[in-house]
Amino acid sequence: MFSGAQISLYPMTDDFVGVITGALGALGLYREKLRIETDDISTLLVGPPEVLFPAMRDLFVAASASGKHCVLHATISRGCPGEPDDPICVSPSLGGPRIPLDERKAAALAAISETAKSGQPVAAQFSLYVMGTDDHMDEIYGCIDFLKRSGVFDHSKHFCTKLRGDAAVVFGAIGESFTRFGPPAGHITLDVTVSANSPSAA
Amino acid sequence: MFSGAQISLYPMTDDFVGVITGALGALGLYREKLRIETDDISTLLVGPPEVLFPAMRDLFVAASASGKHCVLHATISRGCPGEPDDPICVSPSLGGPRIPLDERKAAALAAISETAKSGQPVAAQFSLYVMGTDDHMDEIYGCIDFLKRSGVFDHSKHFCTKLRGDAAVVFGAIGESFTRFGPPAGHITLDVTVSANSPSAA
Repeated sequence: MFSGAQISLYPMTDDFVGVITGALGALGLYREKLRIETDDISTLLVGPPEVLFPAMRDLFVAASASGKHCVLHATISRGCPGEPDDPICVSPSLGGPRIPLDERKAAALAAISETAKSGQPVAAQFSLYVMGTDDHMDEIYGCIDFLKRSGVFDHSKHFCTKLRGDAAVVFGAIGESFTRFGPPAGHITLDVTVSANSPSAA
Repeated sequence: MFSGAQISLYPMTDDFVGVITGALGALGLYREKLRIETDDISTLLVGPPEVLFPAMRDLFVAASASGKHCVLHATISRGCPGEPDDPICVSPSLGGPRIPLDERKAAALAAISETAKSGQPVAAQFSLYVMGTDDHMDEIYGCIDFLKRSGVFDHSKHFCTKLRGDAAVVFGAIGESFTRFGPPAGHITLDVTVSANSPSAA
């Protein structure tokens, strides 16, 4: 299954290029496990979820350490029928049998309960889209129920769910949403925004 | 049908608050036709597509006139089964019978052919998601075919399509994608990023 993300980092400062290039070192550990391509709008990361989400987390935490208001946006996808399969994406967390929704919520909660904190507070909002099936709202509501019990749920908004908490738990919860909801072999996408150091944060 | 967007404006400058507040005047004409709510991550715009897309266009063109590198991100949705219907969203461009894909492509092309230019060059990329139907890729490929003939097609990327051209035509093409592809009464979302004044633009 093909999986990956188009990510963009927005530091709200005159030195946005410096903040971005300064944060790129945080990708060092992950580079050999990802295919990476950059243009003027976003950077493509192709790889499995267990590499993608920690890589996005470490990049964003590094940028946020600048103290500047920073936002990361990611368009994340797995199983798009139009994308070729790629050996770099092989992952134990994708595919497999479809287990009951309650078991998946419990597994997602167990997975994030062991998360080591990053020390960086963030706010985030994201949408989960499940395609090619007529029960997509059941999966979305199941995911929202997991998020409500995740410890980083803030509130439901139109079109998305807002989270707030430590960056490591927030990225962890988004990663669990991506791998455990929607059919295991299905076409799933996320539209994710993560923000730190906002002057208008509550 | 409920329709709207969560939008965020990212000016890459120390004076990001000034650029954002300076651009908000561009929403003046549209405010009475939209429901607007702001928090620290995004601003909700609830209203019909014929108001939403011009409002986003004018806001972004106003911010970009600062000369600073600016990005607008929008999570746009119509017909989500979990959202209540709202009279402010009533639109002639939503609902109605499902006409053949080739006729919709032709209608979308005709609609943007009359677009008055804004004078602001932009790059953009977006994804169209069609839910609750098993023919979602047919609609997505139909939309991509329209975009290829739109005059602002740049190239296909993993997970999204990249556009480049005048802001008015780019926002027009994205708006046509939103209203004409996917079932008329279906649940459709877009994940949209528009960029201006990037130092790394080709």
